Amino acid sequence: MRIRLTDIAEHAGTSISTVSRVMNGKPGVADDVRQRVLAAMDLLGYERPKQTRGRAAGLVGLVVPELSNPIFPAFAQAVENVLAMHGYTPLLCTQSPGGTTEDAYIDALIDHQVDGIVFVSGLHADTRAHHGRYHDLATRGVPMVLVNGYAPDVPAPSISADDAAGVELALRHLVSLGHRRIGLVVGQERFVPAQRKTAAFVRCLVAMGLAGDEAEARTHVVTSFYSLEGGQASTTELLASGHTAVVCASDMMALGAVRAASAAGHDVPRGLSVVGYDDSLLAAYAHPALTTVRQPVDAMSQAAVSTLLAQIGGERVSRTELLFAPELVARHSTGTAP
Amino acid sequence: MRIRLTDIAEHAGTSISTVSRVMNGKPGVADDVRQRVLAAMDLLGYERPKQTRGRAAGLVGLVVPELSNPIFPAFAQAVENVLAMHGYTPLLCTQSPGGTTEDAYIDALIDHQVDGIVFVSGLHADTRAHHGRYHDLATRGVPMVLVNGYAPDVPAPSISADDAAGVELALRHLVSLGHRRIGLVVGQERFVPAQRKTAAFVRCLVAMGLAGDEAEARTHVVTSFYSLEGGQASTTELLASGHTAVVCASDMMALGAVRAASAAGHDVPRGLSVVGYDDSLLAAYAHPALTTVRQPVDAMSQAAVSTLLAQIGGERVSRTELLFAPELVARHSTGTAP
Repeated sequence: MRIRLTDIAEHAGTSISTVSRVMNGKPGVADDVRQRVLAAMDLLGYERPKQTRGRAAGLVGLVVPELSNPIFPAFAQAVENVLAMHGYTPLLCTQSPGGTTEDAYIDALIDHQVDGIVFVSGLHADTRAHHGRYHDLATRGVPMVLVNGYAPDVPAPSISADDAAGVELALRHLVSLGHRRIGLVVGQERFVPAQRKTAAFVRCLVAMGLAGDEAEARTHVVTSFYSLEGGQASTTELLASGHTAVVCASDMMALGAVRAASAAGHDVPRGLSVVGYDDSLLAAYAHPALTTVRQPVDAMSQAAVSTLLAQIGGERVSRTELLFAPELVARHSTGTAP
Repeated sequence: MRIRLTDIAEHAGTSISTVSRVMNGKPGVADDVRQRVLAAMDLLGYERPKQTRGRAAGLVGLVVPELSNPIFPAFAQAVENVLAMHGYTPLLCTQSPGGTTEDAYIDALIDHQVDGIVFVSGLHADTRAHHGRYHDLATRGVPMVLVNGYAPDVPAPSISADDAAGVELALRHLVSLGHRRIGLVVGQERFVPAQRKTAAFVRCLVAMGLAGDEAEARTHVVTSFYSLEGGQASTTELLASGHTAVVCASDMMALGAVRAASAAGHDVPRGLSVVGYDDSLLAAYAHPALTTVRQPVDAMSQAAVSTLLAQIGGERVSRTELLFAPELVARHSTGTAP
């Protein structure tokens, strides 16, 4: 099976002569068409000729916390796609417990003169971490953008999913199913997204009449680690106090919630309704498939790169946080209250 | 909640004085203990002081094909852990259709004088791709190691999962459950792992008396793309020809096989048994949880880094391929033949 130009043209929805122009690095092809032709070559397994490469615009660092929660590979892939489309070579820096730190990565990226850095859920999101590292970068004039973790003191643009809106979506969905005793399963409160989810949850619970006041609402929040085990432990606690539904701060935590329900002899959703957060790869394939709050990963990544490139291009960019509206994806882990 | 030294010491299973030595960058702490202390700090959210950093040994490039199949983030994380433990800063280079190519990454890594490159399932695994890029690297004296895709012409050490052994494990498992009509769902045959799986499958089918000869055995192999959709299409074909079990070349393909069975009105495993390959994150959480062939990712990553570091240290390393034995993880997608 050899790959012919017609196959590539058909796959990319364009003409053979356009494919030929792209392959020979000729001008006169719109960016999006060129991109579709390159993607078709890759998907069909046609080894790209060197001429298709385009100018190398430089390196951009992309710092993410770890790859074991699939939302981070999703962000990495989306940001890299957009960077590559603009000719930049993305360098992905991922962390792990005991591994290379964010600071060590920053040093390496600076040593190699990156044009800018995208931070996804980095130490900027940790209200207890020192932000000196970001101030240093700003002083050196390194363009950067912070994703999911607004740090008002850091002079850099921020892009976040609207956590408050996400929690409200989840709560409205559960209330419409008849749930009245709803808990929040969330990670360590020193992280900005955890604080925002908790604040929104407490506010909504009172506003919806599910708690008399904020102090009472807070008793429905259980804080733990952002992991499957964390979700399992918190949910076990909430089940013991008679909750019929939980809103989880990540899909990994939601998988833990499902496990806690099983361990306590409850079926999901009959005995417990579970809402996840992220809509990562796991959510659709989990059993039961998770109802979850989807982060608009592509739109957020697009905005992050645009903002970074504007800075690289010497533009002044706004430091007002851009909030992206999440959406609720209803699958099979939520049902009517027992 | 403030983190105390006693918490870190307890988590790392060591003494407070050892934690204090690590925090102050003092010598006299064994490497593995030091590592446990750093991991405990990270897990508990204790921001590591600069002194814990150790010497920066240099950059190592890690080239993986994409992040949407969770086996690649798993390899990336494992290789990065081992590199970080040896003081190297890993730079992860991931691809996507239409995105940055392997060649562009190689150029960027060379420009920035990496000490070596680990290639996971790169173009070395594609028998139709030109291997000139690897010969160039070898000529320049860049240490490298190839994971999962043995290329006999490339002068570099190779580390692979033993695909033939994996396929045999899967077949023995299915035969022990009474299956006689078993198909292989595999990706494009230009990739070394696909060729090896196909060859082993054909050989075993004949040896086990499930096919009269190799030509007949080949009729039970359906080749497609390495994706969920590919697995779904191939399995639909195999179901139509009366197969009761399929061995899939990846967990993503196995998820597609389950989907094909559902679409044809079959329950898994009652109507069709499905074996995946990789044991990526998805396998355990899928519904039904996938029986799959586990790649020994940690052992392979450890060996890849050791081999690379030996080269960086000026040692001559063997180019004989190191094959790692996979194991069968039996979960709920396989059952007795109908």
